[in-house]
Amino acid sequence: MSVCEKYYPSEPSKPSVTSSSIPGPKSQEELSKLGKVFDARPAYFMADYEKSVGNYIVDADGNTYLDLYAQIASIALGYNNPALIKAAQSPEMIRALVDRPALGNFPSKDLTAILEKLLKFAPKGQSMVWSGLSGADANELAFKAAFMYYRSKQRGYDKEFSAEENSTVMENSTPGSPQLAVLSFKKAFHGRLFASGSVTCSKPIHKLDFPAFNWPHAEYPAYKFPLEQNEDANRAEDDRCLKIVEDLITSWPIPVAALIIEPIQSEGGDNHASKYFLQSLRDLTLKLGVVYIIDEVQTGVGATGKLWCHEYAEIQPPVDLVTFSKKFQSAGYFFHDPHFVPNKPYRQFNTWCGEPARMIIAGAIGQEIVDKKLAEQCARVGDYLFGKLSALQEKYPTKFQNLRGKNRGTFIAWDLPSGAERDALLKNLKLNGCNVGGCAEKSVRLRPTLTFEEKHADIFVDVLSKVVAEI
Amino acid sequence: MSVCEKYYPSEPSKPSVTSSSIPGPKSQEELSKLGKVFDARPAYFMADYEKSVGNYIVDADGNTYLDLYAQIASIALGYNNPALIKAAQSPEMIRALVDRPALGNFPSKDLTAILEKLLKFAPKGQSMVWSGLSGADANELAFKAAFMYYRSKQRGYDKEFSAEENSTVMENSTPGSPQLAVLSFKKAFHGRLFASGSVTCSKPIHKLDFPAFNWPHAEYPAYKFPLEQNEDANRAEDDRCLKIVEDLITSWPIPVAALIIEPIQSEGGDNHASKYFLQSLRDLTLKLGVVYIIDEVQTGVGATGKLWCHEYAEIQPPVDLVTFSKKFQSAGYFFHDPHFVPNKPYRQFNTWCGEPARMIIAGAIGQEIVDKKLAEQCARVGDYLFGKLSALQEKYPTKFQNLRGKNRGTFIAWDLPSGAERDALLKNLKLNGCNVGGCAEKSVRLRPTLTFEEKHADIFVDVLSKVVAEI
Repeated sequence: MSVCEKYYPSEPSKPSVTSSSIPGPKSQEELSKLGKVFDARPAYFMADYEKSVGNYIVDADGNTYLDLYAQIASIALGYNNPALIKAAQSPEMIRALVDRPALGNFPSKDLTAILEKLLKFAPKGQSMVWSGLSGADANELAFKAAFMYYRSKQRGYDKEFSAEENSTVMENSTPGSPQLAVLSFKKAFHGRLFASGSVTCSKPIHKLDFPAFNWPHAEYPAYKFPLEQNEDANRAEDDRCLKIVEDLITSWPIPVAALIIEPIQSEGGDNHASKYFLQSLRDLTLKLGVVYIIDEVQTGVGATGKLWCHEYAEIQPPVDLVTFSKKFQSAGYFFHDPHFVPNKPYRQFNTWCGEPARMIIAGAIGQEIVDKKLAEQCARVGDYLFGKLSALQEKYPTKFQNLRGKNRGTFIAWDLPSGAERDALLKNLKLNGCNVGGCAEKSVRLRPTLTFEEKHADIFVDVLSKVVAEI
Repeated sequence: MSVCEKYYPSEPSKPSVTSSSIPGPKSQEELSKLGKVFDARPAYFMADYEKSVGNYIVDADGNTYLDLYAQIASIALGYNNPALIKAAQSPEMIRALVDRPALGNFPSKDLTAILEKLLKFAPKGQSMVWSGLSGADANELAFKAAFMYYRSKQRGYDKEFSAEENSTVMENSTPGSPQLAVLSFKKAFHGRLFASGSVTCSKPIHKLDFPAFNWPHAEYPAYKFPLEQNEDANRAEDDRCLKIVEDLITSWPIPVAALIIEPIQSEGGDNHASKYFLQSLRDLTLKLGVVYIIDEVQTGVGATGKLWCHEYAEIQPPVDLVTFSKKFQSAGYFFHDPHFVPNKPYRQFNTWCGEPARMIIAGAIGQEIVDKKLAEQCARVGDYLFGKLSALQEKYPTKFQNLRGKNRGTFIAWDLPSGAERDALLKNLKLNGCNVGGCAEKSVRLRPTLTFEEKHADIFVDVLSKVVAEI
């Protein structure tokens, strides 16, 4: 019996859509009510989570979709997972919800055990964790850690702040508020607050009209696919981009304290970085004294067939900070080693210092991933699905350009000739019972749960074949 | 029978501390384990929420404190409140935890009802809500709303972005990433991320080594107490500060798009702003085209004896945006009217768009506040407590300087002659069974739950009298 059959004996055997357009009439009616109190314009449909199960999401009209988008790449185990229901009903959870602690000042007796559960999944080189509340928050907290570390190295870890620093910081001016930069990459997505927004560079709509820091964006390598037939060209592309990174760090008018990169740029179009590129960035950041941050918000927690996507690159020595969030359905965190604990308490601090309710869910998800070998399953099912999509690519080469994600679990994407054709494909997939997301201008991205199996892949590929033949 | 007796039949009748220093030996042992994985240096003690009840918090050593700090001003109803336990066990809560939705793309059928519950508590002029995940997040999302509104007025709401805006924004440069500022006040606290950090101005330790935006800080009025004996001087102080605000807005090198203010600066020392000051800011922001944001993160949700502290000022027309978080034990939100919905979808957006589990808790807290008339109770108990503290002030004038918070519920504070004496007072209060927080350099702040009653006030004043007599 498969993991999914054990979890979800009542999972539907196939999707079923009766509405002639999505959102259906009932969804539309409810979304119009929601729109009076909340900006509901981005809604695909009004979901019915009571009826959703496993890999299937149900909407207010009773349409049942096979879900390959999974709440923007976040649902880990499927809807209404019994292990998570158990965690949600635990006494620890009730307390976390009802007696929400300010974890920094009044940590709960069970916090150490909860965090140790998370740290079992830490990548090499990381023995501590700090918690925020979202991926963007985690990235900004990691920037704070990086800036404190960078300035501590300059000043001396135990040195007191100068009177000038203590006074100028209250005026937002240097040296107390130093001019320091984080380097990121074009097409990157790291969140939408003001510092995370300054390193995000995927679409204008995310950033227009907001002030931003004067921080540099390097070029992320743009590979030719399939990778194995384009090794020389892709290595040259890596070297071209590495040169840009080094030039920017050494010439930018503001000192670059940290570099942040996604091992696969997800919102930006599923652009992959090679092992060579990620390792070379380690060499470069060590040479130039820059903190190396890996953003695993979308790629982490098993989604690429390993617990952390950057483990494929076997970076030595390990990177400095690793941020994560989505597939723990959870808050946001970064892993770090003890060097990144600031020299004084209350420098990395806020009221909540994390969300214990979400930490409990994250711990339960991690445990299930290990117990049920779900990262391995994701790798296996991904290979299966990639093979089927390669066959479709041979049949319809223009509709499956730059198929990517081989050996990266179900973290698969490809391009359509245009944004309009991509949008039409996604719309028709929905009308035929598959909920799939896009990224960048003309890409389709697959982000199913970790309990997605070969049988689901078959259903998806059948629907996709039909839809592609029609457009 | 009082509300507290109904909620908490097993609430202790008095505090009990057996440890000779805080944290006690068991707390110390557990904090040292926690410190290996998490920065635990700010911890007061390791809390035992299983044993905590009502207005009493218990630590790992079994010490039982009357809690007048309530998780940095956040616990609304007391520990292990039965109405919140019921909400935490509801099927809606299980689904929110297990099937965490991306609320913007796939809102849940019950979201409208959950948000309407929150909007029942909206101040005048606000019919919509947007949700973040913390007070700092709420403030930054409110800044985004303000910047979009400000630029929309300049550009025209329906006008498309220019090609130049669309290209320059990807370089973090103007006009796509415009230079715009938010004006705040010295001693303000609005959070510790990068934009919220730029408007925060209470202590250097919150901000040192982090880049900040070049945004102005005006002066917040510093009143003489008691207010009723110093009306003329305080009005002159208001006018002095209003002139500074106007001068900064009209002369700052970056256009000031928004102004943010706490009706009582909480972290910054419980500095109160008068009705005249808050209304004059409304007049000024309307005259100068600046968005007016009230930060009720610490003062909101009944803590000052009204649902929203700025309701005391009866500002007309209502302010533009109101942010809140803490006493809903919850995420972070801002109320707004439909003018602050951006001209296009996905401009105010992120993966989660809020935390439905916390929205459910917030709705339950709001309902209890209304049903049990807890804001009214807070006003009544606050008057009682203020009277007792006034008597102590007469006896020990140097230990109770600038007693403030009259007619503001239990939101009360006073100053000691020095930070060292304040810290000694807080330490001895803890050793005698009262958990109390400080703010600014030498202030004591009271932030009990809304179920704090006269009997608790009596216990606290007894302990306080003893401790003050000894120091």
